[in-house]
Amino acid sequence: FLMHMNDILETFENPQKNDDYLIKMDIPEFTCICPLTSQPDFAEFYLEYVPDKLCVELKSLKLYMSSYRDIGAFHEDITNKIFKHLYTLVKPRYMFINAHWKVRGGIVTHVEVKKAKNGWKNKNHL
Amino acid sequence: FLMHMNDILETFENPQKNDDYLIKMDIPEFTCICPLTSQPDFAEFYLEYVPDKLCVELKSLKLYMSSYRDIGAFHEDITNKIFKHLYTLVKPRYMFINAHWKVRGGIVTHVEVKKAKNGWKNKNHL
Amino acid sequence: FLMHMNDILETFENPQKNDDYLIKMDIPEFTCICPLTSQPDFAEFYLEYVPDKLCVELKSLKLYMSSYRDIGAFHEDITNKIFKHLYTLVKPRYMFINAHWKVRGGIVTHVEVKKAKNGWKNKNHL
Amino acid sequence: FLMHMNDILETFENPQKNDDYLIKMDIPEFTCICPLTSQPDFAEFYLEYVPDKLCVELKSLKLYMSSYRDIGAFHEDITNKIFKHLYTLVKPRYMFINAHWKVRGGIVTHVEVKKAKNGWKNKNHL
Amino acid sequence: FLMHMNDILETFENPQKNDDYLIKMDIPEFTCICPLTSQPDFAEFYLEYVPDKLCVELKSLKLYMSSYRDIGAFHEDITNKIFKHLYTLVKPRYMFINAHWKVRGGIVTHVEVKKAKNGWKNKNHL
Amino acid sequence: FLMHMNDILETFENPQKNDDYLIKMDIPEFTCICPLTSQPDFAEFYLEYVPDKLCVELKSLKLYMSSYRDIGAFHEDITNKIFKHLYTLVKPRYMFINAHWKVRGGIVTHVEVKKAKNGWKNKNHL
Amino acid sequence: FLMHMNDILETFENPQKNDDYLIKMDIPEFTCICPLTSQPDFAEFYLEYVPDKLCVELKSLKLYMSSYRDIGAFHEDITNKIFKHLYTLVKPRYMFINAHWKVRGGIVTHVEVKKAKNGWKNKNHL
Amino acid sequence: FLMHMNDILETFENPQKNDDYLIKMDIPEFTCICPLTSQPDFAEFYLEYVPDKLCVELKSLKLYMSSYRDIGAFHEDITNKIFKHLYTLVKPRYMFINAHWKVRGGIVTHVEVKKAKNGWKNKNHL
Amino acid sequence: FLMHMNDILETFENPQKNDDYLIKMDIPEFTCICPLTSQPDFAEFYLEYVPDKLCVELKSLKLYMSSYRDIGAFHEDITNKIFKHLYTLVKPRYMFINAHWKVRGGIVTHVEVKKAKNGWKNKNHL
Amino acid sequence: FLMHMNDILETFENPQKNDDYLIKMDIPEFTCICPLTSQPDFAEFYLEYVPDKLCVELKSLKLYMSSYRDIGAFHEDITNKIFKHLYTLVKPRYMFINAHWKVRGGIVTHVEVKKAKNGWKNKNHL
Repeated sequence: FLMHMNDILETFENPQKNDDYLIKMDIPEFTCICPLTSQPDFAEFYLEYVPDKLCVELKSLKLYMSSYRDIGAFHEDITNKIFKHLYTLVKPRYMFINAHWKVRGGIVTHVEVKKAKNGWKNKNHL
Repeated sequence: FLMHMNDILETFENPQKNDDYLIKMDIPEFTCICPLTSQPDFAEFYLEYVPDKLCVELKSLKLYMSSYRDIGAFHEDITNKIFKHLYTLVKPRYMFINAHWKVRGGIVTHVEVKKAKNGWKNKNHL
Repeated sequence: FLMHMNDILETFENPQKNDDYLIKMDIPEFTCICPLTSQPDFAEFYLEYVPDKLCVELKSLKLYMSSYRDIGAFHEDITNKIFKHLYTLVKPRYMFINAHWKVRGGIVTHVEVKKAKNGWKNKNHL
Repeated sequence: FLMHMNDILETFENPQKNDDYLIKMDIPEFTCICPLTSQPDFAEFYLEYVPDKLCVELKSLKLYMSSYRDIGAFHEDITNKIFKHLYTLVKPRYMFINAHWKVRGGIVTHVEVKKAKNGWKNKNHL
Repeated sequence: FLMHMNDILETFENPQKNDDYLIKMDIPEFTCICPLTSQPDFAEFYLEYVPDKLCVELKSLKLYMSSYRDIGAFHEDITNKIFKHLYTLVKPRYMFINAHWKVRGGIVTHVEVKKAKNGWKNKNHL
Repeated sequence: FLMHMNDILETFENPQKNDDYLIKMDIPEFTCICPLTSQPDFAEFYLEYVPDKLCVELKSLKLYMSSYRDIGAFHEDITNKIFKHLYTLVKPRYMFINAHWKVRGGIVTHVEVKKAKNGWKNKNHL
Repeated sequence: FLMHMNDILETFENPQKNDDYLIKMDIPEFTCICPLTSQPDFAEFYLEYVPDKLCVELKSLKLYMSSYRDIGAFHEDITNKIFKHLYTLVKPRYMFINAHWKVRGGIVTHVEVKKAKNGWKNKNHL
Repeated sequence: FLMHMNDILETFENPQKNDDYLIKMDIPEFTCICPLTSQPDFAEFYLEYVPDKLCVELKSLKLYMSSYRDIGAFHEDITNKIFKHLYTLVKPRYMFINAHWKVRGGIVTHVEVKKAKNGWKNKNHL
Repeated sequence: FLMHMNDILETFENPQKNDDYLIKMDIPEFTCICPLTSQPDFAEFYLEYVPDKLCVELKSLKLYMSSYRDIGAFHEDITNKIFKHLYTLVKPRYMFINAHWKVRGGIVTHVEVKKAKNGWKNKNHL
Repeated sequence: FLMHMNDILETFENPQKNDDYLIKMDIPEFTCICPLTSQPDFAEFYLEYVPDKLCVELKSLKLYMSSYRDIGAFHEDITNKIFKHLYTLVKPRYMFINAHWKVRGGIVTHVEVKKAKNGWKNKNHL
């Protein structure tokens, strides 16, 4: 599956490599399958990262997120997988993901993953 | 009572044990009994934690919260009890609870409890 | 059950019987039991009426709403029952209820019931 | 008490008597006493009227509303009394009052009173 | 396809057939396929109806809405189809649907369909 | 004073005289002087009208509203004067003004004036 | 210019011609040129219509709105032109446009145009 | 006056003395007298504290706040007095008060007081 | 001009000199003159300070802010002048001003000035 | 292109050079061209900086932002270019830009750039 993902996601060269700057994306349209009930789950993703050499191309990101449509897995699993794919691909100086899973059993769940390059410091408090 | 609680709550293995990540849950449907007047009290709970080896299973958490329906105790008591149950069960690296108790006598009360594992540091500012 | 309800609800004499005026009440704290799953359901009620000879006493209304805590029935059923109880009791010139049932299966449900005395006209556009 | 009220409230001549126009006032600061518990009650008033020969003077209205500070009466009573005082005083072509009483026992109450001069029609849909 | 739909949707008997009352449902989780680009589309549905002899069962409605997940059609088409299915099934005194389609090309689209039984009048201004 | 006003306000020919259409303007920046205390008063104006032969020119309207800066008069007076100036000038098929006067003595006041040409009907429900 | 517009806008056949239904579109991205200052103006358009035989195709509508980018004209003019183009093209049973022009000189302007086919009645109160 | 206050306020033993946790209270209903004009002033209080050995009892706090009803003093004075009373009574590890005084002369005032026990550190970032 | 200002502004003795506390004021009604166009400018000011020996008297502050009504100067200039006047007058332990200038040329401007007494530390994180 | 930009942007001398203060600007009206599709893109910019010797003149900033109207480039590129132009021109002690790009493919993108003069410290926590 991971391999397949890398076929969809595309990158382009960071136009400003010297200084840190922050890219933030709201992705309100996401759906996958609940592994227990086989019913659809819905979520909104928020992604932010400080690019190093590469940026995620917007249209391929949309296609990548859509490719989860028929995949069944737990909230915690899917969020961590998406994070790993994106982090491995663009090797950013820093990346953060918030996945906001819609109400099930009266409960709303958020899963948040964050990671920074070894030795990177947020000098500019981005 | 504590024993009974552990019968309801269930856990599953954390799918990503190496790195810290944050799970946040809004639980807007909660009711118990006021110990003085025997009238119903209503509250909204917010839970967040960084899992270590275990995660709380969503459906069992819903049942656990519902089990307070006929229990009478003070706001401060109930909030601290729920915190202790969850903390003891999943032994997280960090846990926080906010209980938002609805207006009584024109006053809204929040009770917040927070605890982290000995020596754990929020390196990623989750 | 209906009989029991009438034991809880109390009324007082309308202090201004000559002219129409409107009483509106937000009742955000309501819970009952789902007849299929035996799990708790939560709702917010909105009540409005033009009193005739009687008004609903506030504290007894609170107790009446609380008395549904352990009763299991469908959304449509409970909303119509509460309407009938109140309508029968205070015999208003006009009454309206909106029950806002919290999200189940990703769907929020509202049930609205409205009735006016025979021949009553909302001359004042209350 | 009614007499006393008329000592406080003052009027001035309507500067535009030929055509209908609408005056609307938000009065968010109001407090009186609960006749059962002797505890303070709080409310927000909204007043609107189409003046005929007289307008309510703003400062005297503020003093009039403040004069309820130590008076104990039911929500429905006080709202209807204030309406009657103002209506009797300025004899408007039309008047409407909404009193929004703050939450007691988890329930918010609004009381609304409305009246128009005999034969007056809202030709302009003010 | 229509036939298949009727296999999913279920009804139950209206518990209060004498008087008109209104059922309103927010269904924020809906996705289907764009027939031109084969990319996923997202929408939120709002449904309201005055039941006659039958009500739509909540869980089957959820399954029915989920069944559009892999179907490709224009916004106007899908909205009208869903309306027709529900209207044909429960034969309500009145029904209304608003489909709020998420932004495409910087434009948000709503499609609204409404129908009432021959001769039915909204006497209660529901 | 009225004469002076007409020196400031300018009009241009309505580019679409056959059919009714509606022009709406929010004018949040307005200040004048309180005639009793000589302190500044602040208000927000909302203007809407269906033009007949003339439209109000935007920049001259701004200058006209600014010209009240040093004028002292009651809320009701000023609102009616502005209405009369604009109505007399552009002779619209219909005009409406809402003046939202900021809080004084804890009370917010709105004054609303509306007028339509003799025999004009809002056929299009603009 | 009008001719050019018709080259851009495209239509498709209304999939449900028998009954009235309503299509509503928010178009928040619009810009043109101020004819006096040659500076850019910005607006948000809202369009609604009841289709007869034709619907506006979404993508061509986007291109059509973008084509005003370098055109200079007054607010009232442009709004009426866009209305006329769309109305002439799809010949709807009913159409309404609201153009919300961003603040200039501290004043926000809306222009609203509405028209219905001869003899058409909004029987369903869409 | 201070003595009298202590007669009203009551405490109960902190049910969880080992660990720090936070109690937050919104008190939107408060009124006293302006010492200059003798007119009523209105405010909303927000209180938060980390209890040590004692907690403030909810009902007595309500009565305490009500007891300022007829007392005249400056905003800064009253806020500091209430802080001192509560701080002296429950001797918390940390306490904070925000008093939000409603608009006078077009100006809204907040007064905020904060204090922590000598040597206490907010280790848990409550 | 500075001299004149000091004639308007008045102070009173800080009722609680031992401990730091924070006074915050919203001043939404402010107008002055644009030095380039002579047209009125509008702004909202926010002021906060930790008093040392003196507090600003509310009514004189209102008069002081009103005194800019006919003064023409740049946004940055006026904001810094007001800051300097207030800082020089009450010699606070800390002061901050935010001036929110209303939209001109489609752009909203805020100017923020902040200063603390030499050696003062915000120990209480006010 | 850079050279051309400097022809448009103008500066004026900072009226208060001794102390740090913060200038913040909301620029909600911005449009350029997508380099891939040649369709218009829309964005809202937020700019903040601590001036050193120079300030950006408001009207020239508006013209500068408008000059991107016909330029095609990626979101990340344009944001970094605007930052560089402004930073090079006014040589501030600190500057920050947030560009909020409107939804494309269901995804909203923000790009944020921040930089401070060598050795400058935000002593005042502006």
